[in-house]
Amino acid sequence: MKAAVSRGKRAERPSALIIAGGRGTRFWPESRSWRPKPLFAVDGRTSLLAGTIARLKPLVARERIFVLVSAEQEKVFRKALGRLIPSANLIVEPAGRGTAIAIAYGTAVIADRAGEGVIAVMPADHYITPPAGFRRTLGDAIELASGDRALVVIGVVPDRPEPGYGYQEIGEAAGAGFRVNRFIEKPPLDEARRMVESGRYLWNAGMFVMSAATLRAELAEHAPELARAMAKLGAVSGAALKRLYGRLDFDSFDRVVAEKSRNVMTVRARFQWHDVGSWEGLWEAMREGGSNVLQGNVIALDCEGMLVRGGERLIVTLGVRDLVAVDTGDALLITSRANSQDLRRVVEELGRRRLKKYL
Amino acid sequence: MKAAVSRGKRAERPSALIIAGGRGTRFWPESRSWRPKPLFAVDGRTSLLAGTIARLKPLVARERIFVLVSAEQEKVFRKALGRLIPSANLIVEPAGRGTAIAIAYGTAVIADRAGEGVIAVMPADHYITPPAGFRRTLGDAIELASGDRALVVIGVVPDRPEPGYGYQEIGEAAGAGFRVNRFIEKPPLDEARRMVESGRYLWNAGMFVMSAATLRAELAEHAPELARAMAKLGAVSGAALKRLYGRLDFDSFDRVVAEKSRNVMTVRARFQWHDVGSWEGLWEAMREGGSNVLQGNVIALDCEGMLVRGGERLIVTLGVRDLVAVDTGDALLITSRANSQDLRRVVEELGRRRLKKYL
Repeated sequence: MKAAVSRGKRAERPSALIIAGGRGTRFWPESRSWRPKPLFAVDGRTSLLAGTIARLKPLVARERIFVLVSAEQEKVFRKALGRLIPSANLIVEPAGRGTAIAIAYGTAVIADRAGEGVIAVMPADHYITPPAGFRRTLGDAIELASGDRALVVIGVVPDRPEPGYGYQEIGEAAGAGFRVNRFIEKPPLDEARRMVESGRYLWNAGMFVMSAATLRAELAEHAPELARAMAKLGAVSGAALKRLYGRLDFDSFDRVVAEKSRNVMTVRARFQWHDVGSWEGLWEAMREGGSNVLQGNVIALDCEGMLVRGGERLIVTLGVRDLVAVDTGDALLITSRANSQDLRRVVEELGRRRLKKYL
Repeated sequence: MKAAVSRGKRAERPSALIIAGGRGTRFWPESRSWRPKPLFAVDGRTSLLAGTIARLKPLVARERIFVLVSAEQEKVFRKALGRLIPSANLIVEPAGRGTAIAIAYGTAVIADRAGEGVIAVMPADHYITPPAGFRRTLGDAIELASGDRALVVIGVVPDRPEPGYGYQEIGEAAGAGFRVNRFIEKPPLDEARRMVESGRYLWNAGMFVMSAATLRAELAEHAPELARAMAKLGAVSGAALKRLYGRLDFDSFDRVVAEKSRNVMTVRARFQWHDVGSWEGLWEAMREGGSNVLQGNVIALDCEGMLVRGGERLIVTLGVRDLVAVDTGDALLITSRANSQDLRRVVEELGRRRLKKYL
């Protein structure tokens, strides 16, 4: 499999590193220990991960798409990926240790296998449409990242003051993008409002586009220990990798690198972007201006603001609003959109009751 | 089976006539064409009809309990009754033609089979607890009905001004009960409030206790055509019964007899009574002072005023209130308690979509 990648070894061809982490308890009962959030089909058909892979092609060739998972989730992801990517392109971390380490490790592996081209790093669990707009935007980011040796991010024009997101303050225009002056993480609501009104801030879409060389240089400056580790990470495996990993302790890539870098640029997204972090977020992502999101055999009479997901079984909703109802066959959740962010409580309660099969 | 009844033929022993009518669309998805409301297990265990039968014993012997159904529902009721009553005690009307005709027919059949004792007529779909209190009350009513040749009804002390019910204005005390001055059906809310505050009104529990002789005399006075028909109804069957039935056209027993009779007495109920006419009513009947009524494998976190009915499948509700959720395996209803009276709309919609299996 390694041969399939290294055969080309043309530095200018981009690769992708998809970080598939997180359990996603906030999508219970769809997300379970055996179906983590990236494997969850938000539209009832395609998993977020499969969507992320499909969206990259043909900008990034199948052979250059890598997925990084933690060892404890390797089995479930390997099964789910099937032949979506070459099986050797599943990069397995000994343990989930935050995005800074994950990106350093993934980049080291990809540089070793696929050469020194630009790598687009992205989470596996965002909901993005349309794919063509995504590829146009990412193409611009890749171009910026190869030319300027910059750390390129992608910025989404905010349509509301969302305090839960990260923001980028944009500076002067540069090529297809802008310089980023600074990052602001989860601002208070009134600050978010000011930022959105000023027109000088974008939402941070959680993607990083850069060459391995750029990452090495950034790490050397801001996290030298991780830079030293990265030099070895591409070559070790098994117990040695585990030992190396065990000694590393870093915060998120945003904190460790992006917020400190002096050479960050952003490209404005030409796509709809949703960090579907909850049922509420999924409703927002899927409603397309309408009021109800109904998936499966659902009849809704006099209902507004509903997210209803079922299968074959008939679900009838009558005269209710702003609810989330999710029927997975073995379990049914009914909550309000507002409370749907609070599903950790459900998962905890199921744990207390030792109802393992629902976890 | 007839022998089992006529063997005793002691006029003083009471009988019961349970009227099992109505489709109960307001209990969709529990009530269907193949499971009319009396066969619906409000508590998830015992059907309303089985509960009604069980509650009568030993005051009324099994052999003297009769259930009246319309021909189109005979099959489903015969199957559901099994050996709860002697199979000959299922009285089948050619068609449902209102309670006046049903009671005249049922009384004629019972008088012919079980002699001239008092007959307690009651609907199959009320929810009543506790059984002992019910039997004490009914025992008093039977005593009044045999002594005074009165038409005896049962009155429930109202706990709220309910405009949807019928009311009895009580007069002077008489034996274990009171004379009834008049009936008031579904008063406006403000009138209901005045009546409840006056303390001189009871809710009409929809039961009638009287001998066949009393009924004959009342009908002779207020509905002579039905009196003449009743004289024949006990003896005919098949096509002759159908012919006789087809010629009769009368309003409800309340209108035709009870409201006109000058010899009505009432006994105050020593039981909790609920005319469970909707999911809202069922919640009211089952909550016993609490807030949530949860039947089946249900976990409710931060919920209030909920009625949730399921089975084996896990149902989790989080942070919602005043909802009705009913899961019957093949179908799921989610509505508000307030809108649960409006289920006719759901049944109509299912009809329009020709979703026969859910009807």
